[in-house]
Amino acid sequence: MARVVVDVMLKPEILDPQGQAVVNALPRLGVDDVSSVRIGRRIEIEFVGEADLDRAREIADKLLANPVIEDFEVRLAETEEVRP
Amino acid sequence: MARVVVDVMLKPEILDPQGQAVVNALPRLGVDDVSSVRIGRRIEIEFVGEADLDRAREIADKLLANPVIEDFEVRLAETEEVRP
Repeated sequence: MARVVVDVMLKPEILDPQGQAVVNALPRLGVDDVSSVRIGRRIEIEFVGEADLDRAREIADKLLANPVIEDFEVRLAETEEVRP
Repeated sequence: MARVVVDVMLKPEILDPQGQAVVNALPRLGVDDVSSVRIGRRIEIEFVGEADLDRAREIADKLLANPVIEDFEVRLAETEEVRP
């Protein structure tokens, strides 16, 4: 059992209205030192045997991310990220 | 400028139909060694000065996660995660 993490974020040049809504809400919490909030997706893929990063990259490219507006990164989960 | 990353995932006991839909689509890609896919959110918070993890935790708790069904983790972005 091995876990691969895929982080999918909007490309920097794409506006993120959801993140902007969070920024706009922060002054109500008394927070004034945040300049930007970007909201993306984190996907955890559990492999039965060995983690297969190339396979995970293919899954991310075809099923998880929209390459027109999103970038993604694939990496092995660190040990402390793997919950029992 | 310092970046804090908040990972928000459904609690393990909560069903994730979106992740299950990805699992169901995998055989069509020829993938048969994935046992589970869980889809959560990754939020990048950019602080103007020093990163404030306690502040980020408060933002996550009040604005970003639903503590009834979601767990979250707050951490400093690693250097290689900070895009120029």
